This record gives sequence, C-alpha cells and structure tokens, in this order.
Amino acid sequence: MTPSALSQHVVIVGGGFAGLHAAKRLGKAGCRVTLLDKRNFQLFQPLLYQVATGSLPPGDIAIPQRVVLRKYPTVRAIQATAYDVDPQARVLRHEHGELQYDTLIVATGVKHSYFGKDQWKPFAPGLKTVEHAIEIRHKIFKAFELAEVTEDPAERARLMTFVIVGGGPTGVELAGAIGELAHKTMVKDFRAIDPRAARIILVEGAAGVLPVYDRSLRDAARQSLEQLGVTVMTETRVEDIGERSVRIRRGDAVETIDCGTVLWAAGVTASAFGQILAERTGAERDRGGRVMVNPDCSLPGHDNIFVVGDLAKLKDAAGHEVPGLAQGAIQEGQYVANLLLARARGKTLAPFRYKDLGSMAVIGMNHAVGDLRLFKVRGIVGWFIWAFVHVASLVAPEQRVSVFLEWAWKYLTRRQGDRLITTNPTNTQRLRAERLAPGRNQAA
Amino acid sequence: MTPSALSQHVVIVGGGFAGLHAAKRLGKAGCRVTLLDKRNFQLFQPLLYQVATGSLPPGDIAIPQRVVLRKYPTVRAIQATAYDVDPQARVLRHEHGELQYDTLIVATGVKHSYFGKDQWKPFAPGLKTVEHAIEIRHKIFKAFELAEVTEDPAERARLMTFVIVGGGPTGVELAGAIGELAHKTMVKDFRAIDPRAARIILVEGAAGVLPVYDRSLRDAARQSLEQLGVTVMTETRVEDIGERSVRIRRGDAVETIDCGTVLWAAGVTASAFGQILAERTGAERDRGGRVMVNPDCSLPGHDNIFVVGDLAKLKDAAGHEVPGLAQGAIQEGQYVANLLLARARGKTLAPFRYKDLGSMAVIGMNHAVGDLRLFKVRGIVGWFIWAFVHVASLVAPEQRVSVFLEWAWKYLTRRQGDRLITTNPTNTQRLRAERLAPGRNQAA
Repeated sequence: MTPSALSQHVVIVGGGFAGLHAAKRLGKAGCRVTLLDKRNFQLFQPLLYQVATGSLPPGDIAIPQRVVLRKYPTVRAIQATAYDVDPQARVLRHEHGELQYDTLIVATGVKHSYFGKDQWKPFAPGLKTVEHAIEIRHKIFKAFELAEVTEDPAERARLMTFVIVGGGPTGVELAGAIGELAHKTMVKDFRAIDPRAARIILVEGAAGVLPVYDRSLRDAARQSLEQLGVTVMTETRVEDIGERSVRIRRGDAVETIDCGTVLWAAGVTASAFGQILAERTGAERDRGGRVMVNPDCSLPGHDNIFVVGDLAKLKDAAGHEVPGLAQGAIQEGQYVANLLLARARGKTLAPFRYKDLGSMAVIGMNHAVGDLRLFKVRGIVGWFIWAFVHVASLVAPEQRVSVFLEWAWKYLTRRQGDRLITTNPTNTQRLRAERLAPGRNQAA
Repeated sequence: MTPSALSQHVVIVGGGFAGLHAAKRLGKAGCRVTLLDKRNFQLFQPLLYQVATGSLPPGDIAIPQRVVLRKYPTVRAIQATAYDVDPQARVLRHEHGELQYDTLIVATGVKHSYFGKDQWKPFAPGLKTVEHAIEIRHKIFKAFELAEVTEDPAERARLMTFVIVGGGPTGVELAGAIGELAHKTMVKDFRAIDPRAARIILVEGAAGVLPVYDRSLRDAARQSLEQLGVTVMTETRVEDIGERSVRIRRGDAVETIDCGTVLWAAGVTASAFGQILAERTGAERDRGGRVMVNPDCSLPGHDNIFVVGDLAKLKDAAGHEVPGLAQGAIQEGQYVANLLLARARGKTLAPFRYKDLGSMAVIGMNHAVGDLRLFKVRGIVGWFIWAFVHVASLVAPEQRVSVFLEWAWKYLTRRQGDRLITTNPTNTQRLRAERLAPGRNQAA
C-alpha cells in the first residue's frame, strides 16, 4: 500500500464474522482501522444452541474482538453502540463520541423477528445472543426442576412439553439437543418424573424440516429427530403463543398445546443500524430490511461505504444470492478488505463471487446431515465432519483446543456440567412475608 | 441399618458442601433423603474469584446437586426456597409445598454483609454467588472498555482505579487476579490505554493481609501482590462508598479515592433461614447470626434438628471453634450423616472433632501462600499445591479433568477467553431517539 492509503481511516461497525475478518485483513496490511461493536466479543452463532442446552459455556464460542486483533497495532477495537452516520461529513456517531472515516464498512447483521407478532416475544425467546442462550437454558432446566417438584399431573405434563417454532438448522438443532437431554443425558437424574416422558414438538410451516436441503437429507434429519423423541409437525403454522400454551393450525385442524417452554427459531430481520444507514444514504432495503448493495458490496452512489454479512442483500457475480451464513459473511468481509487494498494500489477487483462450501445441521450428539457439494453425509460420519468443520471455524486457536476437549470429554462421559440455573432464586424473606401474611393460613 | 431407620425421612435444607456431603453419605447407606436448595447447583466458592476475573466459566466450579446424587436412588433433590419450619409437627415449608421430616439438617450457610451499610451494596458487589461473580466480571472488563474509549484523562484514571475492600483470602485473590489481568494478560489488548497503568488498591483494617496467617506468609503475600502492581493499604478503614468514589481513613488521614470499581470482600452474615430456624426453635445465635449448636451439631433441645456448615457456631470436642471453610462444612456434614447412621443401629458417636487440613490463598497465576500444618509453602510450589488441592476438592470427577485442562491450557498460553460482557448492550434505537431528540444538537 502507498503511505497515503495507510493514513486513511477505515471504520467498521459490527465485529461479527464479516467485520472481524475485514479488520484482520486490513490490520495485517497495516491499515488504520477502528472496529466498533455493541459487544466486546465475537460470537460463533452456529454453536449457540449448545450454550442454550448446557453443553458449552459461552466463553468457548465467543472471543473478545480485541484479543483477536491484539497483534495488529493499527487496529483499535472499541465497545460502543453506533446510532448515526453523516455520509457527507464522513462521520459516524456512537454512544461515546464520533469518528471521522474515509471508508465505512457496516456489518451489523440481523436479529430475530416475530413477523410483527412482538407480543409473543416474552413467551418464546429466540436464539441470536448469549443472553438468549442463557435465558433458554434457564427455561429448559427450570421446567424439569418444576416438573420434579409439582404434585399436579396436568401441570407436570405441561412443564415437560417443549415447542420449538421453526424447522431450519437452529430449530432442528435445538429440538435434537433437548431430545438428547431428555432421552439420554438426564435419564437417571430425577425421582418423581421420567425425563423421557417429555414431549418435544418441532413446528414447521413447510413440507419438511431443513427446507433448503436435499430430499434424502431432510428425511434423514426427520428420522434422527424422531429417534430422539421429537415430534415433527410439518405444514403446521403457529397461530398464537401465550404464557402457558401455543395454538397451532394444520390445514383446517386447530390445536392448543399446553407447554412450559416455547422457543423461537423462525425468522430474522435486519439490525436497527441498517435502517439508519438506509435513511442517511437513500439505500434501498428488501422486505426483511436488508440493504441492497452493488456487486462489490458498496452502497449505490457511495463508493466509500460498504455493507457486508447478513445485513447485505447481494447477488454475486454468478447471479446467486449470497445466503446468510458465516461463510458468506467471512468471504464478503475479506473481499471488501482486499478491494480497499487493491484501490490503494490504484487497482480494483472483479465483483464478489460466493464460494459455497456446503451446509450442515446436527441432530443430537452423533447425528448430523450435510450437503458438502461433492458428497452428502449423515449419521455419525456427518457428526464428525460437522464437529471438525465447526471447531476449525472458531476464530482463536486456543478456543479450538478447548472446545474440542470439552466435546471429546462430553462424548466419553455423556455428562453435562453446565446446567446451572443462574437467575436469582426465590428470596427467603420475601417468600416468608408473602406466605405468612396475616389472614393467610400458615399451612397453605 | 434397620428397616425402620431406612424408612425415616431426612430433609436437608441447603446443597452446599455440608448438605451435599451429608446427602451423599446417607444416600450411600440407602436412607430416604430429600435435599432442598434455592439453586440447582453446588458452588465451589474458593474458585469463585476466578469466575469473577474471567479465568473459569461458572460451569467448571459448579455442578447440579442432582447430578452428584444421581447414583443414590433414595435421595431426591428439589430446587425450592424453604421459608418456615414447624418443629412440633416436623414439617418444613417451601415455595412449592411442604415436607414431613423425621430428621432435619439445616445447611444454608452465610451471605455477604455490609456491616449495616446496605446503601453501599449497589456500588460494591460482594462475591458469594455466580451472579455476583458475573456482575464483578462485567464491572472489571467494562471499566477497561470505557477507559479505552473515553477522551477525558481524569475519567480514564478513575475508570482504571479498582478498590477491593477486605484483605482476607477473597480480597487478596481478587486483587491479585486483577493485577495479573492488568499487568500480564491484557498488556497488548488496548491502544489508547496501557492496562499496566491501572491502580489496584486493597484496603484492610488490620495490620496485614490474611490476618489469620503466620507473619512470614503474610509478608510473602503482600510482596506478591505488590509485584502485580497492587497497592496494599493496611490499618485503613472504609468510611463511605459512593457510585464513583470511596472514602478511606488511616489514623487521622482521610482520603477520597475516585474509582470505577469497588469490590466488597469484607464480611459475612448468616442466611435468612438461620433466623427462621432460631425463631421457631428458640435457638441462640451469635452476633453474626450463626446458630449455636451442641458438640454433635444438634440444636439444644431438638435432637432431630442439626445445623452444619457456615451457619453453625460450634466449638468442637477439642474446644476449638470450627472455621467457616469448605473443609469444616464437609466434615460436619459427614459427621451428622454418620451420627444418624449410628443412631439407627442404636449407637451414638463421640462429639464432632475438626481436623484442620491447613489453608491457602493464591496471588496471581503462580504464587500462593499456604499453611499446611506440617509445613508452609509459597511461590510457585505453593501455587501448584494450591491448584492440586482445589482441583481434587471439586465434587465431580469430570470437573476435575475439565478445570485442570483449562488451567494447564491457560498456563501455557497466558490467554483468557471468558472476558465476555454479557449484559444487554446499549440499544441502538433508544440511543438514537435520545441523542437525536428535537432541540438537541446532532453533533453533540
């Protein structure tokens, strides 16, 4: 790069796969970069369901951006929420101040969405953040705890019913992991209940789970789920979600399922910053709020502003829409970094071209289905390939070892340690005051 | 045991060291036991400071009671807060119902206390629970994040000042671990600040840290702390704690220290259930609220009610007061179980006798001081013995391996992954609405 290029300031908003990989590549070349994120860590979302079901601690699938970027002295990471951008003045505004940029890369991703039914949110947590995963973990394990202690059979049955909405990879993986908890891991842990009596219902609107997959893999996935005790309801729509039940419709048949836990794995929408960027630049957005970009990931009319990762709606050079997967985000982040480095040398690059490395989903400990382009995999072979691919994708080398050791250990022992319910428990004095209040029967 | 003894019902309130070890021993003998705890897990408190400073995930130092008790089919564990006891009717009341008992073992421990200054609580979290540890972790790492992003030097200095109140093992270990983060682990992670500029101040009222230890070990501990950049202020009392400062007094000198983080490691008081038990049984309590028990851990006048662990105030057969340590709690829990088993055979046991196995404190990664009765240790030898003793004390075998591997890995790499700040970050839309409100200057 030329000295003038090195003095340019690249500001990246969002430290997920896309933003972090752009920052690494630019940092390696010695560019001056500031990376902003609301969080101080990058999250490996494909494994988040394992945090939600107590197999992995969050620290094993997340790493602070500043640790990843430690070796690049020209890259600064700051934890801050960005809330405005001025494309004329080239200023990004964030909660602690503002940053002057030469180039802006926006990689703020997507969050989960209830398709306009936000009233369902308190009853059906989604799975996009570490907090969601911990909340889901508490819900799942608390349901079994309460089922063990209640003496009302109907209430016990309700508590042991789990409904997962959405039959994509996240829904399939969550349902499989809960099935495995109930049918394998926790079998001997209770006295009043048999965890195998749990009902785990996966609800999907399409004709099969994992709708983007090949027919034979879809069938294999369904079979694996059913072996773990999961009831798969396809062509079924959720009509309403309440505190203690879900109403579903299949054709003309409507059913209300009493349940203790509903998990939402059905939809995503663009981050709030995507809307702000579109307002300030006049960029177009699709129905899901994603920002339409040029084939080189730049915003139409703004060749120094780029959108990468899940927030971008991009048809690549081959005319294929880039899917919202980690591999797409990584490739786009690296592409934009390379493009900026080429521009600094007075050159340019051909439009972005997505390289599809295949996709996989895991069902329980040792079943996975995957379409790896050259061949399809399933069963335990699928699981091993899945485990290898995921461990290899973790950003930091020390995480690879740690996750791999945890998995190996868990695999050998079939135990799980991270089942802690760490919300504050019922306070003794408050409970006493309430139960022993004057006028109440003490023996109640 | 006689069949009638086996049909007796032992109810244990509290699943920490004392309660869980009593349950294990009784379960092994086939007794009918119900163990209640507010939490679904037992916590290894001596390592909690490592969770607070990002070295270990909570799942490595905690395990669900029901997993530990899995192999004892006559033992049932339930997660419930107990709020009342009726010693005449032999009934324990809890949030989900009540339990009839023949024998009651109370092991609800202690919580931290602000010596009547509860107004300090919001500013100076203590360290007794997993939630406290996570809160402290967020405070510590957030302080460095905010120091990196602020442009005000006074604010930066304030954020990088940490005050730890209390020079016992918890305070010493916390101060040492923060010193190690600032002076070793995080040295290369920031651009605007040098973490080594952090001020870490340990405040202790007595003449030295670790007041119960031998003089030479106290001096070694102080020296190790100072090598990690910790300022040790002894004979110093805290007069007030606010949101942004601490006022201390040493003799006639009063100083106000501006600081971003205050941690409380100074005092404990008995659990709320201890007071309820005393009210219902007429038991005496000491100034700290601990329940006075007979030399066999039973309550005076109630030979079927026992108090064990930190909640018990007990002079053992040798006339020594049993200290509030894990080893005391384990020994008392096992003693009471053995006593019940002996009674079932028509026998009894000699009064409880405490076996002091020594005590240790760790300062940073490879320094520890310890008095192991036969000999004293310090430095890296101390650290290895400390690590060995602590790993060996973890209840579940699979945790031993997992913690040991994590430590070994951390030791080899000097990295730490679990520095995640997992509270919800600033919301983009709320921030935008606030900052861009009409009448406010957009560039503010």
